[in-house]
Amino acid sequence: MDLTKIENPLFLKEMNVKECQILSNQIRSFLINSISKTGGHLASNLGVVELTVALHKVFDSPKDKIFFDVGHQAYTHKILTGRAKDFSKLRQYKSLSGFQKREESIHDVWEAGHSSTSLSAALGMAIARDLNKEDYNIVPVIGDGALGSGMALEALNEIGSEKRKLIIIFNDNDMSISKNVGAMTKGFAKLRTEKTYNAIKDDLKHTLNKSFIGKGVLYTLRNVKNVVKNTIVNRGIFGEFDIDYLGPVDGHNIKDLIDAFETAKNHDKPIVVHVLTQKGKGYKFCENDECGKWHGIGPFDVETGKPLIGNDGNLIPYSQVVTNALIQLATKDENIITITPAMIAGSKLEKFFAKFPERSFDCGIAEEHAVTLSAALALSNKRPVLSIYSSFLQRGYDQLNHDVCRMDLPVVFCLDRAGLVGEDGDTHHGVFDISFMRSLPNIILSQPKDATEARNLLYTGLNQNHPFSIRIPRGSIEDSSNSFELIDIGSWEILNDNDNNKAIVFTYGNDVNAVLNKVTVNNLPITVINCRFFKPIDTTKLEYLIKKDIKMVVYESDMLAGGLGSAILEWANDNNFSIKLKRFGINDIYVGHGSNNLLRKDCNIDINSLFDYLINLVG
Amino acid sequence: MDLTKIENPLFLKEMNVKECQILSNQIRSFLINSISKTGGHLASNLGVVELTVALHKVFDSPKDKIFFDVGHQAYTHKILTGRAKDFSKLRQYKSLSGFQKREESIHDVWEAGHSSTSLSAALGMAIARDLNKEDYNIVPVIGDGALGSGMALEALNEIGSEKRKLIIIFNDNDMSISKNVGAMTKGFAKLRTEKTYNAIKDDLKHTLNKSFIGKGVLYTLRNVKNVVKNTIVNRGIFGEFDIDYLGPVDGHNIKDLIDAFETAKNHDKPIVVHVLTQKGKGYKFCENDECGKWHGIGPFDVETGKPLIGNDGNLIPYSQVVTNALIQLATKDENIITITPAMIAGSKLEKFFAKFPERSFDCGIAEEHAVTLSAALALSNKRPVLSIYSSFLQRGYDQLNHDVCRMDLPVVFCLDRAGLVGEDGDTHHGVFDISFMRSLPNIILSQPKDATEARNLLYTGLNQNHPFSIRIPRGSIEDSSNSFELIDIGSWEILNDNDNNKAIVFTYGNDVNAVLNKVTVNNLPITVINCRFFKPIDTTKLEYLIKKDIKMVVYESDMLAGGLGSAILEWANDNNFSIKLKRFGINDIYVGHGSNNLLRKDCNIDINSLFDYLINLVG
Repeated sequence: MDLTKIENPLFLKEMNVKECQILSNQIRSFLINSISKTGGHLASNLGVVELTVALHKVFDSPKDKIFFDVGHQAYTHKILTGRAKDFSKLRQYKSLSGFQKREESIHDVWEAGHSSTSLSAALGMAIARDLNKEDYNIVPVIGDGALGSGMALEALNEIGSEKRKLIIIFNDNDMSISKNVGAMTKGFAKLRTEKTYNAIKDDLKHTLNKSFIGKGVLYTLRNVKNVVKNTIVNRGIFGEFDIDYLGPVDGHNIKDLIDAFETAKNHDKPIVVHVLTQKGKGYKFCENDECGKWHGIGPFDVETGKPLIGNDGNLIPYSQVVTNALIQLATKDENIITITPAMIAGSKLEKFFAKFPERSFDCGIAEEHAVTLSAALALSNKRPVLSIYSSFLQRGYDQLNHDVCRMDLPVVFCLDRAGLVGEDGDTHHGVFDISFMRSLPNIILSQPKDATEARNLLYTGLNQNHPFSIRIPRGSIEDSSNSFELIDIGSWEILNDNDNNKAIVFTYGNDVNAVLNKVTVNNLPITVINCRFFKPIDTTKLEYLIKKDIKMVVYESDMLAGGLGSAILEWANDNNFSIKLKRFGINDIYVGHGSNNLLRKDCNIDINSLFDYLINLVG
Repeated sequence: MDLTKIENPLFLKEMNVKECQILSNQIRSFLINSISKTGGHLASNLGVVELTVALHKVFDSPKDKIFFDVGHQAYTHKILTGRAKDFSKLRQYKSLSGFQKREESIHDVWEAGHSSTSLSAALGMAIARDLNKEDYNIVPVIGDGALGSGMALEALNEIGSEKRKLIIIFNDNDMSISKNVGAMTKGFAKLRTEKTYNAIKDDLKHTLNKSFIGKGVLYTLRNVKNVVKNTIVNRGIFGEFDIDYLGPVDGHNIKDLIDAFETAKNHDKPIVVHVLTQKGKGYKFCENDECGKWHGIGPFDVETGKPLIGNDGNLIPYSQVVTNALIQLATKDENIITITPAMIAGSKLEKFFAKFPERSFDCGIAEEHAVTLSAALALSNKRPVLSIYSSFLQRGYDQLNHDVCRMDLPVVFCLDRAGLVGEDGDTHHGVFDISFMRSLPNIILSQPKDATEARNLLYTGLNQNHPFSIRIPRGSIEDSSNSFELIDIGSWEILNDNDNNKAIVFTYGNDVNAVLNKVTVNNLPITVINCRFFKPIDTTKLEYLIKKDIKMVVYESDMLAGGLGSAILEWANDNNFSIKLKRFGINDIYVGHGSNNLLRKDCNIDINSLFDYLINLVG
C-alpha cells in the first residue's frame, strides 16, 4: 500500500495477520530508505515495527493512549497515524519532529526526549481517567535501558501500589543506546529464557484437552478473561513491584503480539507485557551494532551502510578531542576516572573505555547516581571526569548542588552537547546549564573557544581542587595540539585590543573565532573577548574594558536569564559601574528542532544578525 | 558511663554484649533527655541505637567507613565518636550539626541531607578503594523509605553488576518520615516474615549435629566464612539486583547484630544486611507515631510528650494556611488533586488527605516521579497541586523543565520551606529555586507577603493555564481571611508611594511587612515594594519607580546570582534604563545551620543590616 496515503490507523482493523506482516515489511523498507536520506534514529525504530502495528491494531488510538518512552522510536507510530508523507523532511526546521509532539498529531498524547518519564505519565493519565470514571487503555512503551533509570523505578513502585489499569509494554532489546549495563539486565535475561506466554497457554490447553471436563473448561478458557488469569504470572523485578507480568512474547511475530495485547487489554490491573525485539531488525548493519553507532545517524548508503556525508579530513568530533586529551592525561595520572551515564558512543568515549577498562564506568541511564558516584570518587582522592550531556545533567541538578558543589569536590564535568544541538530539538538543547549552575557556590564554569583550549581547560580542571565544568558543543572541530597548558582560572582573553575600537563583543565557545574572523575580514573597529569562564568572570579585564567607555555587546547562544550577560550586569552593578549591554541570546522560549543555522536565525542569534547590529553600531 | 567522656569508639572492643546493651539504654535515655531540651530528630535516632553500637563494635571507624543515608539518624554515631558533650547545642549556630559533617569529625566520611545518596557514595568509595588496592569496609546505612527513591535503585543496579565488597545495612522500620508507601513495601514485609538469618543458621547446625560427619562439618561451619555461604540467600528485590542478602536480624538485639555484621564482614561481594528496627524505640510517644509528628521536633516534656513551646494562638503553620485554602478550593473544584513526595506531615497535608483520599497522592521519596506525574495529571485536564519542599524540587529539575514548563502545563507548585530554614541547615535551605527556575520559559514564579496573599496566589494559580509556583517559607503566620481574590499575574504592590520618598526597597515574602513596619514606625522616607512575582516581573511599576530616580535597594534572602535583583538589572538594561541597585542577598556561599536570625546576620541580610544601610542612605 501507499504509506503516504494512510490517514489514521483504523484500516488496520480490517487487516489479517498476514497483511499486517506485509505492511510491517513495507514500513521497514520505507524507514531504511527514508532515514538513509534524512538521517535520524534508525535502529530503535526498526526494532518496534511489528510491535507498533500490533498496538494500533489492538488498541483504538487516540481514545486509547499509546506512547513511547523517550519517543525517538515512534516513527512507525507516525507512519500509521498519517505522517509518512512528512518523512522526507524528518527533523528539519518546522517539519516532522524526531519525537512525539502533541501539536503534530492527536495520536501523540505525551512528549518526551529524556528517557524514563512514560511510566509516571501513564500513572497520571490513569488517575485522571479513573477519577473521571472514563474507560480507555493507557499503553506506554518502555525499553529495558530506560527501565533501569531511577524515575521509572519510582513510578513502578507507585503503579504497583495504586493498582490502576495500565498496560506497560516492556520493549526488551537487551540494549540501551549501546550495550546495556546494570544488574537488572541479568534478571531480564532470565525472564527472556523462561517459558513464554504462548507456551504456558498451549500447555494449559493441552492439559485440559485430555479430559472430558477439560474440554468444557477449554471453551471457557478461550474466553479471554480466563486465559488472562492462567497465563499472567508474578515474575522478576515486576513481581517485586507487585505488578503482573505476561510474556515473553516474540516482538516480531504479529500474531503473538496481537494475542498478548488482547489478553492484557482484558486485565483490570497494571500489567507488563514483555516483548522481545531486536534493535535494528531487518537491516544487517544495524542488527550487528553493539556500540550504538546506528542509534542516531546521518544520511547513509543503503547498500554499504556507509555515511554519505564524509568527514572533513581536518575535523574530528569535539567529544573525541576531549577523549583524546583525557587518554593522554590518564596515561600519566592513574587517578583519572571516566564516568558516563549510558553515553559511551554519544560522547565518543570508546577509546578511553578500551584503554582503561578498570577506570571507566558506564552507569546506565542513571544521571543522579552518576553525579553522586563521581562526588564519592573525588572525596576518595580520585580524579573523576563525568562526561554528560548538558541537558542530561539537568537530571542530576540536586546531586551536583549538594553532593559536589556543597562538599566542594573536584569533579570535572565535561558537559557534552552544550548549547543548541540542532535536529534533536527542544529536549536536547543544552542551553540551561549556565543559568542553573551559576548560582551554585564553589564550582568553576568554563567553555573553550577551540580544541586547544578544550584540552587546556581539561588539564586545568584536573589540576585544581574545586568542581569544574567544561562545556563542549555538538559538532566537529580542528585539533592539532598535543601539549597541555594551565589556564588561569577565571581569565578571559582580549583577542584584538585597539584603542581606536568602537565596540566590544563578549562571547564564548565556537562563536569567539567566528566573530573574530568576521571582524578581521571586514576590518571592523571591534574588540572581541573570549569569555571562557562564566564563573568566576574576569573582573580585572571586565573593569578595564568597561573603562574604555565604548559600546558593549554580549553575544550569547544560551538562555538569557541568568546567563553571561546577567553575570556581567550583576558584577558591574555591585561594583558601581554604570553599563549598558546589548544582549543577544535565547529570550525565554523553548527552541525547536532543525539545523542550528535556522534555529539561530529564528532566535535572532545568528552571526548575520549580530553583524547587522554591529555594523550599524560602529558604522 | 559518662557519655560525654567518650573520645572514640575503641572502648567498645572491650565490652561484652550485656555491657553494650546497658550502654545502648544509656544512650537512649541521653537522647530523649537531650532532644527534649534542644529539639531535633528523635524517632529515627531512637531506632538505630543498638544498630549503631553494634556497627562501631564490629567495624573500625574511621578506617572502615560507616555512614548514614540522609544523616539525621547519626546521633548515636556522634555520641560514640566523641560528640555527646556538644548535644546541648545541637543544631545551633556554629555548633553540632543535626547531620554528619566531615569538618565535625574524622568519623563522618560522607555528608547528606537529602535521602538516598549513600549507595552511590558507597560504590564510589569502593571503586577508589579497589583501585588503590586498599582493604577496608564500606558500610552505608539506608532506610526502607530511602530505598524506594530512584537514585538508590540506580545505585543498587550498578552495585549488583560491579560486585565490589560493600556492606549495605538496610534499616527497615517500615516507615519513611510517615507511613511508608509504594509496592516495594509489600516485598519488604514479606522479607520481614521469612526465616531469619539466625534461624537458618540454627537449622543448619541442628541438621549437621545429627550425624557424626555433621559434627565435623559443624566445626568448620563455626568458621565464619562457611556460615556466610550457607546463610546468605538471594531474596526479594535485592535478588533482582543480584545482591546477596542476610537477614532479617532483630535490630534491637546486640548479639544478633554483632553476629550478622561479623558474617557480612567476611563476605567478599556486596551484601545487604536486613535489620528490623522500630522507629522511636523505647519512648512510647514516638513508638506510636504513624504520621511523623515525632520525626523532627521542638523541645518537649519527657513525661507528657507535650511540646514546651506552645503555639502562639494567633499563628498557624504557613503550610497549614495553604492546606486550609486548598481544602476550601477543592471542595468546589473536584479537579484539584494534591501530590506530595513523602511530606504529608512536613507540609501539613493531613487534613486534605483525610478529606479527599481519592484526590491525594503520596508518591514516597520520589521527587522526579512526582513532578512528571503532576505533569500528566495537568495534561489530562486535572488541577494538580504539587506540595514540595523547595530544596527537594531540586531533585525534579529536569522534569520541571521538560515535562511541566516545556509542555506548558498548569501544575501549581507549592514550594514549601522556601528560603532559609534555620536548624536543618545547608542541605535544606530553599534558596536556589528562584535562580534555577527563572530561566525556564512559561512558568510563573511567585511568593506571597502574607497568608491572605498566599491564599490568593493559590487561587490565581488554579485559575490560569501555565505552570505556577508559590514559595511558602518555613514558620507560622496569622491567617484571618476566608475568601479568595484573583491577583494580576506579574503585578507588584507599591505599598507606600510618596513623592517625597528618597529610596525604594524591593523585597518579597515575610520581609515585605517587616520592612514596611520598620519604615512606618521610624517614619522613614522609603517606598516599599512587594515583589510578589519573580517572573514575570511588574515592568510597568518598575519603569514608574525607576523614573523617580531615587535610590533603589533590593532586599533578597536567597542566592543573589540570577535572583530578583538580577531580573531587575536584566530588564532595565534591555530597556535602556540606567540603574544602580544596592543588592542584599546570599552571596555565593552555602549557608550553615542555626536560627534564621543568626544565619541572616551572618549573611548580612538581617533587617538591622538593611536598616543601617537605609538610614544612612536617606538620613
